[in-house]
Amino acid sequence: MEKITVDPNLIKHLVQLLEEGKEEEVRDQLNELYAQDIADLLDTVKPDIARQMMKLIDKEKSIKVLVEMEDKVREHFFAAYSSKEIADEFIQNMDSDDAVYVLTHFPVKEKEEVISNLTDIEFASSLLSLLNYEEYTAGSLMAVELVKANINWSVSQCIEEIRRQAENVESIYVVYVVDDYERLSGIITLKNLILATPSAKLADVYNETVISVSTSTDSEEIANLFDKYDLVVLPVVNALGQLVGRITVDDVVEVIKDEANEDYQLMSGITEDVDYSDKVWILSRARLPWLLIGLLGGIASSRFIELYEEELRIHPEMAFFMPLIAAMGGNAGVQSSAIVVQGLANNTLGTKNILPKIFKELRVALINGFICSGVLFAYNLLFSTGYDLSITVSVALLSVIVFATILGTFIPMVLHKMKIDPAIATGPFITTTNDLLGLALYFTIGRLLYTVI
Amino acid sequence: MEKITVDPNLIKHLVQLLEEGKEEEVRDQLNELYAQDIADLLDTVKPDIARQMMKLIDKEKSIKVLVEMEDKVREHFFAAYSSKEIADEFIQNMDSDDAVYVLTHFPVKEKEEVISNLTDIEFASSLLSLLNYEEYTAGSLMAVELVKANINWSVSQCIEEIRRQAENVESIYVVYVVDDYERLSGIITLKNLILATPSAKLADVYNETVISVSTSTDSEEIANLFDKYDLVVLPVVNALGQLVGRITVDDVVEVIKDEANEDYQLMSGITEDVDYSDKVWILSRARLPWLLIGLLGGIASSRFIELYEEELRIHPEMAFFMPLIAAMGGNAGVQSSAIVVQGLANNTLGTKNILPKIFKELRVALINGFICSGVLFAYNLLFSTGYDLSITVSVALLSVIVFATILGTFIPMVLHKMKIDPAIATGPFITTTNDLLGLALYFTIGRLLYTVI
Repeated sequence: MEKITVDPNLIKHLVQLLEEGKEEEVRDQLNELYAQDIADLLDTVKPDIARQMMKLIDKEKSIKVLVEMEDKVREHFFAAYSSKEIADEFIQNMDSDDAVYVLTHFPVKEKEEVISNLTDIEFASSLLSLLNYEEYTAGSLMAVELVKANINWSVSQCIEEIRRQAENVESIYVVYVVDDYERLSGIITLKNLILATPSAKLADVYNETVISVSTSTDSEEIANLFDKYDLVVLPVVNALGQLVGRITVDDVVEVIKDEANEDYQLMSGITEDVDYSDKVWILSRARLPWLLIGLLGGIASSRFIELYEEELRIHPEMAFFMPLIAAMGGNAGVQSSAIVVQGLANNTLGTKNILPKIFKELRVALINGFICSGVLFAYNLLFSTGYDLSITVSVALLSVIVFATILGTFIPMVLHKMKIDPAIATGPFITTTNDLLGLALYFTIGRLLYTVI
Repeated sequence: MEKITVDPNLIKHLVQLLEEGKEEEVRDQLNELYAQDIADLLDTVKPDIARQMMKLIDKEKSIKVLVEMEDKVREHFFAAYSSKEIADEFIQNMDSDDAVYVLTHFPVKEKEEVISNLTDIEFASSLLSLLNYEEYTAGSLMAVELVKANINWSVSQCIEEIRRQAENVESIYVVYVVDDYERLSGIITLKNLILATPSAKLADVYNETVISVSTSTDSEEIANLFDKYDLVVLPVVNALGQLVGRITVDDVVEVIKDEANEDYQLMSGITEDVDYSDKVWILSRARLPWLLIGLLGGIASSRFIELYEEELRIHPEMAFFMPLIAAMGGNAGVQSSAIVVQGLANNTLGTKNILPKIFKELRVALINGFICSGVLFAYNLLFSTGYDLSITVSVALLSVIVFATILGTFIPMVLHKMKIDPAIATGPFITTTNDLLGLALYFTIGRLLYTVI
């Protein structure tokens, strides 16, 4: 059992050892760590130190480190090598999905140069075809390394094949059983292979129920399959049903996390996938669009309130409750949108029969609206806000909660039907709309019930 | 390859067949489906139909269906059985983690009654101890079913042991190697077991680097380990280092999804884990707390604005920009909180050295603040809002964006240090605070720059 987080003191210690020329000690200590931890460590040191350290790491582990390190650090690292060296020493030794992952960060020209320098032509052509698949599809997520066996083989032949292929495939969970045309017929788990009699035919012991996807299946659908059927690995077939690759659960965990983060960022009004380590101007750029949309909404609301300037002059107390009404509309709208967005994402909510769903939300809105308006009315009476204003504000609050809730339910469903990501409904765009809607309702009700009195 | 979503027509068809008494046909069609799909199907039919169908499903599959179905449907289903029957026919045949999952939904008394009715005393006592682990810890997530082998055994003895234990353990990824005191020493993958010579000693072929957790490890930390180290299964040890269970990746996918959803729901102002199928009053209850907090904030802001009643009477145009200022403060605050919350969740952001992080956010806020204020100033000049008010509004906007951004960065970090979930910083509580802060800044600046003029 080894360390699972990298102590900052260890980093300092290793850098110092390296500066003192004690390479053997650095080598021993580095190679005791997991590749992921070495990658974390290299992410924090200077590029030339990282390069020196990489040379000390065991070949196989250094390949993994390269895949795990941050894109910028890897870029720095590769800068010191020619395309030929990158192909021979690094890409050649990677699994195809890792190689594709690393290569997608190269400019097109360099990418092709590196691939053309690969000596293993079969691997090179696999990479070329993998790179052609659209992003976020099974083809772009899969690795071509897998163990397959012909349905006519015996169990012992199959085990022989595993021995032969074992070096290329890091983790084997199941053996794929294919027919003479390479079409996927089923699977056999290693467990069942061990339990079977060596002379048995695969045809008699394999499991023919196997979930597979096509190369064009969307990553979100793949994530749902892994989640629903508790999969660890999923075979990918082409249009002819031939086995072309496999997707492992670790790649899908990334997809699931990315999706959740995407919704979260949309909701918080951030347009790009940024994190704290990004440059100031990238962080600014990711946020500015939503701030500007909010600004536009604010300007619109200022124009709108201007229409009621005379009322405000006579009844400045109308202004007291403007932020309350606007904020409550935003809150109620986001709450119902968020539930719809999650329901759509988890496939627990269809967009058929929208009406009963809207009706259900209407009931929720009425309950919460009446409670909130009631509390507000009681407060206003207690603190001797005028009777007329108290009624106006409470009626407006109830209306705002009801309208915002219904809009909040309706809009993400419509977006989903229009094949637009419904999560944008929870972002500042809709919040801003709800702000405006709230004020419009408030002033209209105010004119009807109050200021004309 | 079978269907992977359940067609509503299939459901109707099966119900009709059942009513016509064609049980054999229903049996055949049901048993061709995956357990997860049968569970989905049973979730949509009436309880007595569900019970009839369950009786037609193969024993082993029906156990899986029971685990996969919705809690309410399972509850209905069990209602027709005695504790003894539930123990003998269902719980007894489940994996320990599934049994615990199902039992946690029982009232305490019934839970104990079911367990006391189990004939396999060893299994019953496993369940009792598993049920004692705190929720969201390794102990509560793990299953006790696993394959282990003594380090002194040979490879062929180990394979013999797999044969012996195979019936109890559904999916075997690795064999755990333990010493004479049952302490975890390492692992050997099935692949390496197949590749090794049968007469070799496990001690010579096993891998002694293995990541493990203790029974008390938090589920969030476990999810991070699976994610970082691309794990499929993780052994759990007790305080003595003895192997007591294993956690598989499918359970962790749930944890990862739940966590992401939790942050999302907190941000949207929903306090409980609800979805669309919940009852109206549960949906209301989950949202009401945040609406009431928002209401409180709104009332506070109304009291605050009241202080400026005279200014508003003379300058009602001050009111035009109140919603703009409040909304922009909320937006800017949520943006920076969300980035901090995600950074903390992904472990990419520590809470050491808060100052440089605040300083970085300050620069982002200044850039976006100047751009937004500039746009607003230009707009106001163009549309001949008075010069004084234009300056006031723009200065207030800049200040609000800067303050809200800094608060938005600072608060989640402080919450995290206080061991409170930082995600609540993105919820309505802080948005409301930012609304108030925005108005306070606006009126203060207004009094300084504008209304006194």
